[in-house]
Amino acid sequence: MESVVTPKGYLFSTVEAGFRKSGRPDLALAVSETPAVVAAMFTQALFKAAPVLVGQEIVRNGGLVRAVLVNTGQANASTGEKGRQNCLRTLDLVSEKIGIKPTEILPASTGVIGNELKMDLWEKAVPGLVKGLGSKSVVDFAKAIMTTDRFHKIAYRSLSFDGWQVRLCGVAKGAGMICPNMATMISVLFCDAAVDPSEWKELVKRAVDASFNRVTVDGDTSTNDTVYALANGASGFKPEGSHLSELEKAVTDILSRLAYMLVQDGEGATKVMHIHVTGARSDEDAEKAARTIGNSQLVKTAMFGQDANWGRIIAALGRSGAQFKPEDVILRVCGVLLFKDQQPVRAAADGDDPKLTAGLKEQDIPIELQLGYGKGCYTLLASDLGLDYVKLNSDYRS
Amino acid sequence: MESVVTPKGYLFSTVEAGFRKSGRPDLALAVSETPAVVAAMFTQALFKAAPVLVGQEIVRNGGLVRAVLVNTGQANASTGEKGRQNCLRTLDLVSEKIGIKPTEILPASTGVIGNELKMDLWEKAVPGLVKGLGSKSVVDFAKAIMTTDRFHKIAYRSLSFDGWQVRLCGVAKGAGMICPNMATMISVLFCDAAVDPSEWKELVKRAVDASFNRVTVDGDTSTNDTVYALANGASGFKPEGSHLSELEKAVTDILSRLAYMLVQDGEGATKVMHIHVTGARSDEDAEKAARTIGNSQLVKTAMFGQDANWGRIIAALGRSGAQFKPEDVILRVCGVLLFKDQQPVRAAADGDDPKLTAGLKEQDIPIELQLGYGKGCYTLLASDLGLDYVKLNSDYRS
Repeated sequence: MESVVTPKGYLFSTVEAGFRKSGRPDLALAVSETPAVVAAMFTQALFKAAPVLVGQEIVRNGGLVRAVLVNTGQANASTGEKGRQNCLRTLDLVSEKIGIKPTEILPASTGVIGNELKMDLWEKAVPGLVKGLGSKSVVDFAKAIMTTDRFHKIAYRSLSFDGWQVRLCGVAKGAGMICPNMATMISVLFCDAAVDPSEWKELVKRAVDASFNRVTVDGDTSTNDTVYALANGASGFKPEGSHLSELEKAVTDILSRLAYMLVQDGEGATKVMHIHVTGARSDEDAEKAARTIGNSQLVKTAMFGQDANWGRIIAALGRSGAQFKPEDVILRVCGVLLFKDQQPVRAAADGDDPKLTAGLKEQDIPIELQLGYGKGCYTLLASDLGLDYVKLNSDYRS
Repeated sequence: MESVVTPKGYLFSTVEAGFRKSGRPDLALAVSETPAVVAAMFTQALFKAAPVLVGQEIVRNGGLVRAVLVNTGQANASTGEKGRQNCLRTLDLVSEKIGIKPTEILPASTGVIGNELKMDLWEKAVPGLVKGLGSKSVVDFAKAIMTTDRFHKIAYRSLSFDGWQVRLCGVAKGAGMICPNMATMISVLFCDAAVDPSEWKELVKRAVDASFNRVTVDGDTSTNDTVYALANGASGFKPEGSHLSELEKAVTDILSRLAYMLVQDGEGATKVMHIHVTGARSDEDAEKAARTIGNSQLVKTAMFGQDANWGRIIAALGRSGAQFKPEDVILRVCGVLLFKDQQPVRAAADGDDPKLTAGLKEQDIPIELQLGYGKGCYTLLASDLGLDYVKLNSDYRS
């Protein structure tokens, strides 16, 4: 049994509603005993799933919330007005049984795009789900929201402030920006600090920008991406000033660890590239370079083959749109100098460096690019591209 | 023996210089008997190979040219000043034997990035190469510039103008924007019309924009991409007015057919997606949408699996940055309506449409997206992503 820090004042429940063929729990509910401040971030894609649209409305209205309701198996994306009505109905079902308003329940769905929610299964499952509240742990919650994930994703911290304890625990699911035909990334952060709503929103936004927004598996953003961060004040402590900074650091740390796990669990992935670009004209330019490299099929397949193919990295940099002078560029992979003065550093480039050969066998592959142009920098985590990605994604529906 | 239209006044030669392990011809020379007008387009990437830099200089000086010299096996990219000197030396070698100026010879190289030219092999090979001029055909030339290509790529036309004949023949190589660790696309067009140099440049630029610039295999642009188009006037005819328009149509047609072959021969590719986006706010927006779909790993793997996974196409459109209203979007694959009113059209979306099932088994897959927003449109050819792409690109150097 995993020993996990669980924030105070949250109750969890999961059931097997039968949305998935696999016979695993597929419906999860978390309830805060007291109203909680919420920060939320959603997919930027123009086609947004019904639960994203409903969740956005609830958050926009600015009130406190009490619960998060997540299902797998059906994304409820591209389901039109009926999908919206179905989503609202699921909130009503929970609301009726538990006595909190539907507008205090945040929905999130993941699964196949275009399939409608199986409302008969929802009607049957919700009574047991509500009845079970408190009988399950946050680990069960993390497991119940998995789809093609190979492992459940959870990260937590406990902070001490002058004798007060504040607890944070985050969960996430996703094994690709979109799983096979699925609408993917969902993360829920539970925290028992008392926080100012607008400060919490700013803090969570910065933390998401520094974590989830800096990873890529396949460059495909989903229709359902959702992050909910709840703070219910059950610890009785309200961090301010440097305490608030410490809380932000903890939130960023948790979300970064979850983001790392998403890449690590990338479909068919065997590697996590840590692409550090420094010396760019601007942070935006550094990001362009890092993303072009991290999404390059040729770089990704080279990494899968444990090949420090510097030519592909350099070629991707060259077409990224980032400004630089080719003569200033320096590339290191696994700490080994590979490219400088517009030329490969021979032994390493030819694959004869023992440190490089050993490094490429590890899961984590540091790729450092110095552009020598300005002060812009960016770090991106990216998975490799292996045979299983193609197998999984071409066989999924057939 | 392929019966190919060969423009007048060009001589061809190829030899096996030993740059490649495979024992295939790997050095090719084409010489025009008279000075030819030239239009050239090169990779936009910031790291440009030595032959690209040298070729750019020659073309920039604006004179007429006499020859094109292409080698495979070594890209002469990322080879610094020595690479440039080596490239110039190869032009000198040919110049010395044949009596035309080195500044009248256009170089192009393809092969592994970072390897230096094997100058000893060049010294040995050039005399035979020059001696063989006229003994080989344009088909031999097309074959000698292949690297991982599964077939040689050639397209030709003959035009009649008031009793005059004008002949065009284009060749290309490339099986990916970058081949495995290679620097890829090279195309040479031979034409025997007499043309005005600046009109020819404009005409060829428009034709390249409408052909080679509208295909993608893996989104990776190479360091060596080069198109040379020569017009030597050997036909004795100078098209003007509507004749010039007809010539442009023929050039565009030839380059489009070569571009199609590049996608068809994409590494591990089994499909050519024809992605037509119409009704976009602007042509740029339509291009954004088409490229995001054509480069989406999830769309590509679905096509490999013969699965009209409309959800992935719609999700890629949604994140493309193109402006549209989700409720106006209509998607057809293989002529079958799949998505409208923000919802899938059921039978087809569930994979139960016989026309769709049959269409997905073909090599050419039309994907039509109507955005219903404005008048912008764009067509992109894109390959699928199969297991062999990953195998080829992860095993290449190891």
